[in-house]
Amino acid sequence: MWQGLMAQTNAPITITQNKVQLTFTIDPAGQPIYTVDFNGKAFITPSRQGFVLATDSLFYKGFALINTEKKSVDETWKPVWGEVSTIRNSYQQLTVHLKQQTSGHLLDIVFRVFDDGVGFRYEFPYQPDLKYFTVTDEHTAFNLAGDATAWWIPGDYDSNEYPYTTSKLSQVNNSSLVQSATDIAVRTAPDPFAVQTPLMLKTEDQLYVNIHEAALRNYPAMQLHVDGNTHQLSARLVPDAVGNKAYLHAPCTTPWRTIIVSDKAADLLASKMILNLNDPPKTTDFSWIQPMKFVGIWWEMQTGKSTWNYADADNRGKDDGLVPNGRHGANTANVKKYIDFAAANGFKGVLVEGWNTGWEDWFGNWKEEVFDFVTPYPDFNVKEIEQYAAAKGVQMIMHNETSGSATNYERQLDTAFRFMRAYDYPAVKTGYVGRIIPRGEHHDGQWMVNHYERVAQKGLQYHIMIDAHEPPRPTGLQRTFPNWMASEAGRGNEYNAFSNGTAPDHETILPFTRLMGGPMDYTPGIFKLKGYAPHVPDRQMHSTLAKQLALYVTIYSPLQMVADLPENYEAHKDAFQFIRDVPVDWDDTRILAAEPGDYITIARKEKGKPNWYIGAITDELPRKAAIPLHFLDKGKKYRATIYADADNADWKQNPEVYHITTTVVDATTILNLQLAAGGGAAIAILPI
Amino acid sequence: MWQGLMAQTNAPITITQNKVQLTFTIDPAGQPIYTVDFNGKAFITPSRQGFVLATDSLFYKGFALINTEKKSVDETWKPVWGEVSTIRNSYQQLTVHLKQQTSGHLLDIVFRVFDDGVGFRYEFPYQPDLKYFTVTDEHTAFNLAGDATAWWIPGDYDSNEYPYTTSKLSQVNNSSLVQSATDIAVRTAPDPFAVQTPLMLKTEDQLYVNIHEAALRNYPAMQLHVDGNTHQLSARLVPDAVGNKAYLHAPCTTPWRTIIVSDKAADLLASKMILNLNDPPKTTDFSWIQPMKFVGIWWEMQTGKSTWNYADADNRGKDDGLVPNGRHGANTANVKKYIDFAAANGFKGVLVEGWNTGWEDWFGNWKEEVFDFVTPYPDFNVKEIEQYAAAKGVQMIMHNETSGSATNYERQLDTAFRFMRAYDYPAVKTGYVGRIIPRGEHHDGQWMVNHYERVAQKGLQYHIMIDAHEPPRPTGLQRTFPNWMASEAGRGNEYNAFSNGTAPDHETILPFTRLMGGPMDYTPGIFKLKGYAPHVPDRQMHSTLAKQLALYVTIYSPLQMVADLPENYEAHKDAFQFIRDVPVDWDDTRILAAEPGDYITIARKEKGKPNWYIGAITDELPRKAAIPLHFLDKGKKYRATIYADADNADWKQNPEVYHITTTVVDATTILNLQLAAGGGAAIAILPI
Repeated sequence: MWQGLMAQTNAPITITQNKVQLTFTIDPAGQPIYTVDFNGKAFITPSRQGFVLATDSLFYKGFALINTEKKSVDETWKPVWGEVSTIRNSYQQLTVHLKQQTSGHLLDIVFRVFDDGVGFRYEFPYQPDLKYFTVTDEHTAFNLAGDATAWWIPGDYDSNEYPYTTSKLSQVNNSSLVQSATDIAVRTAPDPFAVQTPLMLKTEDQLYVNIHEAALRNYPAMQLHVDGNTHQLSARLVPDAVGNKAYLHAPCTTPWRTIIVSDKAADLLASKMILNLNDPPKTTDFSWIQPMKFVGIWWEMQTGKSTWNYADADNRGKDDGLVPNGRHGANTANVKKYIDFAAANGFKGVLVEGWNTGWEDWFGNWKEEVFDFVTPYPDFNVKEIEQYAAAKGVQMIMHNETSGSATNYERQLDTAFRFMRAYDYPAVKTGYVGRIIPRGEHHDGQWMVNHYERVAQKGLQYHIMIDAHEPPRPTGLQRTFPNWMASEAGRGNEYNAFSNGTAPDHETILPFTRLMGGPMDYTPGIFKLKGYAPHVPDRQMHSTLAKQLALYVTIYSPLQMVADLPENYEAHKDAFQFIRDVPVDWDDTRILAAEPGDYITIARKEKGKPNWYIGAITDELPRKAAIPLHFLDKGKKYRATIYADADNADWKQNPEVYHITTTVVDATTILNLQLAAGGGAAIAILPI
Repeated sequence: MWQGLMAQTNAPITITQNKVQLTFTIDPAGQPIYTVDFNGKAFITPSRQGFVLATDSLFYKGFALINTEKKSVDETWKPVWGEVSTIRNSYQQLTVHLKQQTSGHLLDIVFRVFDDGVGFRYEFPYQPDLKYFTVTDEHTAFNLAGDATAWWIPGDYDSNEYPYTTSKLSQVNNSSLVQSATDIAVRTAPDPFAVQTPLMLKTEDQLYVNIHEAALRNYPAMQLHVDGNTHQLSARLVPDAVGNKAYLHAPCTTPWRTIIVSDKAADLLASKMILNLNDPPKTTDFSWIQPMKFVGIWWEMQTGKSTWNYADADNRGKDDGLVPNGRHGANTANVKKYIDFAAANGFKGVLVEGWNTGWEDWFGNWKEEVFDFVTPYPDFNVKEIEQYAAAKGVQMIMHNETSGSATNYERQLDTAFRFMRAYDYPAVKTGYVGRIIPRGEHHDGQWMVNHYERVAQKGLQYHIMIDAHEPPRPTGLQRTFPNWMASEAGRGNEYNAFSNGTAPDHETILPFTRLMGGPMDYTPGIFKLKGYAPHVPDRQMHSTLAKQLALYVTIYSPLQMVADLPENYEAHKDAFQFIRDVPVDWDDTRILAAEPGDYITIARKEKGKPNWYIGAITDELPRKAAIPLHFLDKGKKYRATIYADADNADWKQNPEVYHITTTVVDATTILNLQLAAGGGAAIAILPI
């Protein structure tokens, strides 16, 4: 009886900002279709949109366009912390109001076109016949115009910690990678042609394209299924325990699907589109949020020098109980050593892992009750450490590893956060190494997405900063939750400690992929680059020492670890000065040079100060970096301290050699530096 | 290399107490096998035991007997509350220590033989090679010697609320029952030949046999798969979200598998075997636990007179918000009416359902965040009600419906229980109507079994009594958690309100099935037996008024509801006197007559007093009950007040007619009463 209202092909509707144009239409089958042009040419060819719902299997076709709305926005806002002090949010918006003709259900799609790309999301308006509903599949596609080069990791439901592969879209197949990635704790990648977002692409037309999402809330993470023949990418949502994707309640919205584009790679790193698509925070008093550098009892466990666990065996059920192994890292005396080190060098925080009971059998058992988050091992004196740290002007950073048992953590969340407040811990590093409980759920599914947000909300309530390890990759939620300062959600430096590590181009890809959504707790700053893992003598970092310094600028995080052991910094006090100096909060950022997989040079201006810091890194190839300093105040003289690879430096053969020089520079200077294979350079520029 | 140790057939080992004998052996395949005799004849023929583990698929055969131990126990203990004041625990115990020859894994089986049956459980001792493990299946069988008559409900993972079917084992098939049971909120019964325990059986040899389990903790509920040809029953464990059954950590034990047997049906109702197989509580101060009768704003919603919800529509996303429907039951004025009624009649508690926000869309949406357990509707004044109740000497009973979202409840458990303490609620009725969250889990699976125990533990911590609706059927845990006083976990009186109800024999079956494991919040005492559901005028109770009185004796619960509306009691003040008088805690209990599906007569002696109360009920047939009072003190005179069906009473045609007589009785008296079809009688006997 609704046939009289069958969808008709509509005239295309376009919105344009600068070089980016979005075209929306409805095809003869009533499917919503969008296209994205850059500079007059479609790099996203007509691509479908829509859903399969549990109660409406055709919620992707048979749509009629009911109405459209357009608006323009141009505004600025100030993040609580970040890479820049002011962010401009300028876009054209198109809202299309659709009605599915068979069911009568309503669906809106909102498009925003920015200078640097397009974001769109689905909105389910209030409607009497569609209140609670279940998303079985999302049909969003991103049809690439050709066979682009892609920097990708497998579409795994439980991990973002793979090394990147650089290949044509047509060559994407993750099977052997997933199978061989035995250094990743939990791997669930049923689709060999699925990849994670942010997916970085370089088209045959030399466009740089990044596909991701913004504001992932109450919805599963989106992965992309790659059709190698057609170069079509299709949204794949991480399923829940029973195979559904999302449980929604109208009125509601999905996350934004984001397509960032430019003919200059640097523009992608400078893009604020994802942040702009997130909501501002609900409150405004964030004086308690303090970006900081921190040290920690951590690398010594990663490298096998000490242990998280207090005893070597779980002897539950035997008489002897916990027998200390004598190698427990988180003991009071050792903690004090790190506090002294932090205090002496001006670092605000000290992280201690392995301080609480349960580490003897924490991993791999899919066990519900692992940690209790408040019971220290007998050699970790909470009160004494609190007092010692306070006397030294240092704050302790809590560590809450959950082993993936999110239900257990949720039950104790208030208890855990009250404990942090009671003992003056301003921040917590959370961890989810292991198969998720509720069993059948995944790290990147809707249930866990909501869990991570609950923890962030709890942090807001208790004034605790969050550094989440093993969450889904960020989607700009740090705007909404400024206390959710950093996440791991990627392959960090630690893989160089406990596995065979990661190729030297890794850090040149991360900013184009993982970092697009938000800060990463990458744990840079390793100075002892060989021979740090006693039991694996030939293990080494895939980096020079100077590159480790540069990472403090090229990998942004407001919580930045100074990851190596104090004694390894003592051995290179001159180089260590850069880590002591480099800030973690910035007024301005300039992407001076960037090519994914090859090199990155970034300059940043310290928050509230005239000082600039530069990081330049290269991949496995030695490279000359010509760094123009045009961003300096005209006519003003500065002293630049340059921490560069020595001439004979090489990540593999000779990683720890560097030279430090100072020179007077101004806005007309171009610094010409030689980066070693796997190397980099760090520069501090202060006004004279 | 272990072939030299291959299992051999062992000589049978027996233990015997009175008429019950247990025989254990290992068959030629190395399978553990047990047999149970009563009076020299095997009613459980040789039946296998063992497991399939995720890491050991043959953990049911290839066993060798390493060692055995025997012991005798004869002790007594006093429950905090109950049907009797002292319980004797007398049994013979056999422990067999087994070793699986291929894996080397150890398994113990502990048997206890009582006067009235056998309990056995598996114990996984401490062993280096089997710490954390996953139970994929349990192979326990109960092979009946013949085609017994069974009183059964479907083996549903999410509900015990079916009406009972009486059939031969060979006729068990639950498909059509499950399909047609649209009055049950969530039904998950994939095996048409599975039944719930407690399973009541009457063998061809006229033995009464009850198969169930005791001390269900950290393990899924056991259901039974019926082989109609062989009359073999096999354990089926309720699966988790990914199809596993239990995650265990040795040393650990399973629940006890229980086989209660007698040639007298009454002995089964008197059995304390299941309680004896549960652990005593860990603490001893339970002075805060107070058995009580309570009234509530509840039946008026069940019958459609008022509503749980404050508004009729969930208008989230619309401007008008919650528009009161004018029929909200839980309003302050109405609550005060119930408080007055409770105070006037000596009832300690007042339950109020629908007091908190969220009822507009609480059901059927598989929604995670339904209720917050602390936010009242605007017409429910928590503080005013607390003060009013306190002034009247009455206590409020909290209601926490979760809609099945256990994760949501667990997150708020401390908040909810603190709220109860703050407003002086000594007890909470919990509810789990709906599909469980964590999604994929079931009411009767291991995860939820642990959830219900967590709530009971939280109650211990906050001194709150628990009345759990929609948990697994009880297994005697009220011994270990005396504050977990009652459960629904069965088909209560409410089905006569919101559905077509339950046949008159239902209450004669319940004590032999559901009640074997513990008290049931059945909500007896409905006086208006027809015309109570305005929108369904021909709906009626399947009971006479006198039978409703008798249920206060025949269905034991230390939290006993006085379920009907105050005005319906006002209409029958003389009969109501029995409900005012009848206790909920007892020194002694005598099962005077019992036949499953036909009739039950029980006498109980009030705790600490010389008063006796008798309940006698029949099924759909009128019946004469000859009730000997031999349990009265010899030579002492008592006045008996008899609440009996009138001569013309009949559950269908004329349910509300009764007569009340008093007579002087002593230990030699035999009362001869006529029970109407669907009727009963209640008697109060007080010393003169």
